[in-house]
Amino acid sequence: MKTSLKILTLVLLSTLMFSLTQDKPTKVIFFGDSITQAGVGPSGYITKMKETLEKQGIKDKYQLIGAGIGGNKVYDLYLRMEDDVLSQKPDVVVIYIGVNDVWHKSSMGTGTDADKFTGFYTAIIKKLQSQGIRVICCTPAVIGERNDNSNQQDGDLNHYSNIIRGLAAKFDCPLIDLRKEFQSYSLKNNPQNKDSGILTTDRVHLNDLGNQFVADLMLKAVVK
Amino acid sequence: MKTSLKILTLVLLSTLMFSLTQDKPTKVIFFGDSITQAGVGPSGYITKMKETLEKQGIKDKYQLIGAGIGGNKVYDLYLRMEDDVLSQKPDVVVIYIGVNDVWHKSSMGTGTDADKFTGFYTAIIKKLQSQGIRVICCTPAVIGERNDNSNQQDGDLNHYSNIIRGLAAKFDCPLIDLRKEFQSYSLKNNPQNKDSGILTTDRVHLNDLGNQFVADLMLKAVVK
Amino acid sequence: MKTSLKILTLVLLSTLMFSLTQDKPTKVIFFGDSITQAGVGPSGYITKMKETLEKQGIKDKYQLIGAGIGGNKVYDLYLRMEDDVLSQKPDVVVIYIGVNDVWHKSSMGTGTDADKFTGFYTAIIKKLQSQGIRVICCTPAVIGERNDNSNQQDGDLNHYSNIIRGLAAKFDCPLIDLRKEFQSYSLKNNPQNKDSGILTTDRVHLNDLGNQFVADLMLKAVVK
Amino acid sequence: MKTSLKILTLVLLSTLMFSLTQDKPTKVIFFGDSITQAGVGPSGYITKMKETLEKQGIKDKYQLIGAGIGGNKVYDLYLRMEDDVLSQKPDVVVIYIGVNDVWHKSSMGTGTDADKFTGFYTAIIKKLQSQGIRVICCTPAVIGERNDNSNQQDGDLNHYSNIIRGLAAKFDCPLIDLRKEFQSYSLKNNPQNKDSGILTTDRVHLNDLGNQFVADLMLKAVVK
Repeated sequence: MKTSLKILTLVLLSTLMFSLTQDKPTKVIFFGDSITQAGVGPSGYITKMKETLEKQGIKDKYQLIGAGIGGNKVYDLYLRMEDDVLSQKPDVVVIYIGVNDVWHKSSMGTGTDADKFTGFYTAIIKKLQSQGIRVICCTPAVIGERNDNSNQQDGDLNHYSNIIRGLAAKFDCPLIDLRKEFQSYSLKNNPQNKDSGILTTDRVHLNDLGNQFVADLMLKAVVK
Repeated sequence: MKTSLKILTLVLLSTLMFSLTQDKPTKVIFFGDSITQAGVGPSGYITKMKETLEKQGIKDKYQLIGAGIGGNKVYDLYLRMEDDVLSQKPDVVVIYIGVNDVWHKSSMGTGTDADKFTGFYTAIIKKLQSQGIRVICCTPAVIGERNDNSNQQDGDLNHYSNIIRGLAAKFDCPLIDLRKEFQSYSLKNNPQNKDSGILTTDRVHLNDLGNQFVADLMLKAVVK
Repeated sequence: MKTSLKILTLVLLSTLMFSLTQDKPTKVIFFGDSITQAGVGPSGYITKMKETLEKQGIKDKYQLIGAGIGGNKVYDLYLRMEDDVLSQKPDVVVIYIGVNDVWHKSSMGTGTDADKFTGFYTAIIKKLQSQGIRVICCTPAVIGERNDNSNQQDGDLNHYSNIIRGLAAKFDCPLIDLRKEFQSYSLKNNPQNKDSGILTTDRVHLNDLGNQFVADLMLKAVVK
Repeated sequence: MKTSLKILTLVLLSTLMFSLTQDKPTKVIFFGDSITQAGVGPSGYITKMKETLEKQGIKDKYQLIGAGIGGNKVYDLYLRMEDDVLSQKPDVVVIYIGVNDVWHKSSMGTGTDADKFTGFYTAIIKKLQSQGIRVICCTPAVIGERNDNSNQQDGDLNHYSNIIRGLAAKFDCPLIDLRKEFQSYSLKNNPQNKDSGILTTDRVHLNDLGNQFVADLMLKAVVK
């Protein structure tokens, strides 16, 4: 009896060790629009995060997956959440949405009303959390990099960012406050008050520096 | 024994007859925006349908339920479909949406892109049909009643109506072509080319005649 | 004395003939937006009109001048009328405006209200006519070439065309009804109901055929 | 000779006194939109300025005239400048415009592009100054009174205010920086960050306090 007990103990221990060393990586899905779609490109923010993880020697602990589609607004995420996110059974989902919800108001007449933005965003958080997924929220960074709140959509971007900050607090989600970080950065690093070329190429999409900036902020929230 | 058998037979027969005459009514949900929300009012189109069914002596055969909310666009229907429609287990759903998807482009900058209108409309039809529900589609009637295609949104309303006609054909749904019917009516009955006051009070919402007009068209499609 | 009389007569006659053959050409200014700006290009509609006049041997009778600037709306014409038109003392001004007044509503939120379109258009006609200039009006052709009134801006284009038709009648200006002509053309020559590629390259700007089409219509109105 | 000198002196003196007491008042025209149209109402800002001038005993020195029309944008001022302003031969014109140029972008799709706003504003200043009129510029106050730059149009209002500040400097016009003053006021007096009810009734139009606030700022600029 003592022998069989020993064997059982050994089996259990090795199983435990196996599970410790062979632990499945944390699966993180970045759920967003064209900024995230570009995030998996050669100099995209997701690619840069992977590079950093590799340098830190912890690349096997995280599986970073981009799920960004150009032109997406909050309700587009809701529509494709089942197929593009839940089906992959992620541990963490980073929601990075809001630019088009604001921007398309003036460029196409097809933005998202603030109350409906709140409604769909809430529905996404609830559904993800109900599956035990850890949800991280981001505020939309910029549409124009002028640092005196004189970019056309600044009012709305500030408003929708306030909405996201409120939802993150309400549902106890970590918040990556990209808008605040970009605004601070522009105040310090944009003395000519240019509307692009600081962290973006075209007022919205990230240049190399912008991708690194976002990657660093994201990584801090993802790797705890 | 023979007597008890007769009694049993009678009981069974009367139960059968009761069930035949007391057959559960066909449950029809009208799923839409403010026009449908008003449809359950004293002179609304759903109320008028009930009155007609009563006159025809078949009011017990149909249960007509309004599920309209002001300001709704196609993606709002999608978001609340589970709670407001599926949970009620309807036999038939009449989708009557599209006015705000077009109208809010110019009045608030928050209309719906044509491709996303198609995407959400398709998702709604598929989900309903997957539950064995009979889906009936409607084109959006009017935003302005001028009959020479000179109302601001006529181009878009015609386009989105074409989209709905295509989806109805594709998914084999009966179509109530309100747009076509309203346009024909205005050509005959609006000699002064007024932009409201024919079938609407305010270019969009139905007056008494408009509610009757819609009720008659709806009933033809619902009662087969 | 007889000889000197003969000489005088000859001098007078040759002066008369000179003045007849060297008569100042009718100066025509085409006042508009990017379509007219392109009109003076190698295959533009104004260039094509000049070629036709040359073939007809009457090129010296008309001086055709383009005064089109991309993005112009009716009030832009009003603002630059003094500098770009009146200062040149034209005999005829062809006003070809309206596309951007409608289009920019949805693409930038900066279209022109119908009542203000009417106000500025009226002010332009009045000012030009007060200087003895013959004013010719054009309706805006197309934003999208689908022939079933299902291009997004068709309703508004029809409405603004109606306004221009009314002003042309009111102020007794010849009308070149480009919208009507383009719609008729598309009904006959666009069986696939494409939204560009018939008379335009991009739904708005004229291809070679479109420039010829407009040139022919313009010339009929200018050369009486 | 001494007598005639005395007489001359007396004549000159009385002429001087007559001119002093009978001096024509400074004619000031307030040129703007609905806010200025309401300015001549019982509790409007122009009415309040008159009351203040009366209290100060200098009401005869200024003739204050409202020339505001609801819905006006900068180009509307340009169109009616001759009839409504120049014809009255004012000494001073206060230009108070810009709210609708920004607001109507999202509410009707008919706002004013920034470059065209600049062009028309410049044309108005130049024309007025060419007639020897003193021009005073105002920045547009608010569309929403939240004090954290989260009202939808804050970005654009800040941008168009920057344009006006630049033009005022360029053309050496006194500036009444209503936007800056309203923002400072809201920071101090709007702890709940409400979007109306502080100096406005409805996010845009002035309540009694707002009219007094504007009246005081205007008067400081007008009475030097």
